[in-house]
Amino acid sequence: MPPVITLLTDFGTRDAYVGAMKGVILGIAADATIVDIAHDLPPQDVHEAAWLLRTSFAYFPPGTVHVAVVDPGVGTERRAIAARAGGMMFVGPDNGVLSWALTAAGDARAVEISNRAYMRDHVSDTFHGRDVFAPAAAHLANGVPLDSLGPPVADPMMLSWPAPRMFDDRIECEVAHVDRFGNLITSLDRQTLDAWRRDAPVWIEIAGETIDSLARTYGAAPPGALVALFDSSDHLEIAVCDGSAASRLHAARGETVVVRRR
Amino acid sequence: MPPVITLLTDFGTRDAYVGAMKGVILGIAADATIVDIAHDLPPQDVHEAAWLLRTSFAYFPPGTVHVAVVDPGVGTERRAIAARAGGMMFVGPDNGVLSWALTAAGDARAVEISNRAYMRDHVSDTFHGRDVFAPAAAHLANGVPLDSLGPPVADPMMLSWPAPRMFDDRIECEVAHVDRFGNLITSLDRQTLDAWRRDAPVWIEIAGETIDSLARTYGAAPPGALVALFDSSDHLEIAVCDGSAASRLHAARGETVVVRRR
Amino acid sequence: MPPVITLLTDFGTRDAYVGAMKGVILGIAADATIVDIAHDLPPQDVHEAAWLLRTSFAYFPPGTVHVAVVDPGVGTERRAIAARAGGMMFVGPDNGVLSWALTAAGDARAVEISNRAYMRDHVSDTFHGRDVFAPAAAHLANGVPLDSLGPPVADPMMLSWPAPRMFDDRIECEVAHVDRFGNLITSLDRQTLDAWRRDAPVWIEIAGETIDSLARTYGAAPPGALVALFDSSDHLEIAVCDGSAASRLHAARGETVVVRRR
Repeated sequence: MPPVITLLTDFGTRDAYVGAMKGVILGIAADATIVDIAHDLPPQDVHEAAWLLRTSFAYFPPGTVHVAVVDPGVGTERRAIAARAGGMMFVGPDNGVLSWALTAAGDARAVEISNRAYMRDHVSDTFHGRDVFAPAAAHLANGVPLDSLGPPVADPMMLSWPAPRMFDDRIECEVAHVDRFGNLITSLDRQTLDAWRRDAPVWIEIAGETIDSLARTYGAAPPGALVALFDSSDHLEIAVCDGSAASRLHAARGETVVVRRR
Repeated sequence: MPPVITLLTDFGTRDAYVGAMKGVILGIAADATIVDIAHDLPPQDVHEAAWLLRTSFAYFPPGTVHVAVVDPGVGTERRAIAARAGGMMFVGPDNGVLSWALTAAGDARAVEISNRAYMRDHVSDTFHGRDVFAPAAAHLANGVPLDSLGPPVADPMMLSWPAPRMFDDRIECEVAHVDRFGNLITSLDRQTLDAWRRDAPVWIEIAGETIDSLARTYGAAPPGALVALFDSSDHLEIAVCDGSAASRLHAARGETVVVRRR
Repeated sequence: MPPVITLLTDFGTRDAYVGAMKGVILGIAADATIVDIAHDLPPQDVHEAAWLLRTSFAYFPPGTVHVAVVDPGVGTERRAIAARAGGMMFVGPDNGVLSWALTAAGDARAVEISNRAYMRDHVSDTFHGRDVFAPAAAHLANGVPLDSLGPPVADPMMLSWPAPRMFDDRIECEVAHVDRFGNLITSLDRQTLDAWRRDAPVWIEIAGETIDSLARTYGAAPPGALVALFDSSDHLEIAVCDGSAASRLHAARGETVVVRRR
């Protein structure tokens, strides 16, 4: 079974940076299947990358090596890390970009990538995606043991998770991701909401608007109407049927969402 | 020979939706070669996807599984279908997105995807691309018989084709696709035009402008000039040499094009 | 080891043109690993493609077939060429798009692609990417000898390289590429600059601003400050820490950059 390596970067698709990473990978792991997660993130948006990795890694087969490179600190003293968690491998800068996925995968073991034998011969100061992370991922895909890359890291940097604040009468959460359809996806997951509401009816407030129930599908509301539902990663999402909730509500990441129960 | 699976969606490349589909596919068909057709379609534009699939599917090797997911009705009662036609396989929602390709491929046989054994264990209400269509495509690529997926569908939904209207002195057709270069591509194919014109000279009218002959290449006209020619899928196209006909003519899909003969 | 074929075009990712090329390749070389370099180039920008190919081809394994199709002259008398250089193969129109890579790879041997046996049966006048270049690349990947494609070409078209102009007190060069981060990358390479400066301190002038030294990393300057450093392809680059130099300086390709030594 060919190994799978995924790539998630802010390098865009107008330049040749992602191509260069793939060239390096294929020079080391010729039979790897390389999958793009996304590259058109807002430049240097570590939180966005962390969210996308968190909500997609688990759909890949066991053993997949996930590489995430959003790396404003490239060339400075920030560490490069690799980790095993939940049967997957992860590679990236130690700036939190991997952290939400590592937490979700569980039981993470991380090492610093410091062994020059698993880097390109010349390591630039500006493109560790190509010179450090791509070769590390390819070697891991080839079966090189994690611990060969470098010493353990006990304290990989964690991004703070935008945790919902639970109250007796309400949950306050926030928009954690806005997708290309303008859907507003919060960090409030179905399990948490269900345990709190105990079958009570709920309504949702956002940007001065009220949505009076939870729907099951986009099509449950008439075109143009606001709808609240669980998205495909089981997080509470505010959407507009056949439209963009982000445009309709002028809402972006960080917008407050309040869930109330009767 | 590794099986080929193509993906055509409106999920964009800023989110991880396409990546999740690929992860699911590779978990079932590890050796599949996955090819992106396009993902940056206007959201929920079923006609655009139908056109792109219609004009590209035939260039793939026999046995290719084509997956098209532009699916505003996800989670509602619209069916999920898979089909065999012209030596290819097709998978997508039954909203017409496959219909022009099925007609062009010929001799289509469709089934409803209803067998839960070929879906992900948990099927979300909002992302059948990942939970229904990706696994169905991967299983077909693995050789699972079409009929195993579910019962026959005799009447898959068809989009109406923007057929040219033929008159004695003219053909009225319309722009069916605008590509990234601003080329305006109509649904009038070369064979139909040649049979009608019988070697007579023709001229073309669009948006108040007249193009007095058919050219063979973009380079046949001076830079900036309008040119009419057959595009690479053998449809009549209006272009501007070294420029954008869409910008020059302020024309979009649906714009009327008239071909007249002397 | 599966052969690697890279694709670099201006076809974008909203249309199915790149997909059609991949379908044709996989119909001939079923086990090829196809890698996208970039497709969202400004339409018909041959220089941009030449730069991206020049700065990325060398990271791929020996034997890789690089296909570059930015081809405003498609269907006219411009030749189609294939070449071997530096252990790699190159395929594209003879309009200079390959030229900087061929020069950098060294010892290039080029042929005209004229043997119809290695094209699609029907060759359109508007899409040689699909009908000529994709099949040629796939056949080369399969091991077809270069000389089977057609007769030698002694004089492939060369784009003039934006060579730095060397003076005793200064080097005048120009911005050759602007990447998605707004980094301004010049054609002045590290080796040339180091040989000229002989350890003398240098400062850099661009758009009325002065940068008083060379840095090693983006992080060497405070956020928002201009910084000059060598980019990952070892060319002099003007950047803004956590920002866009292109926006900050209103600079584009062709902008003059002057390096002075004390």
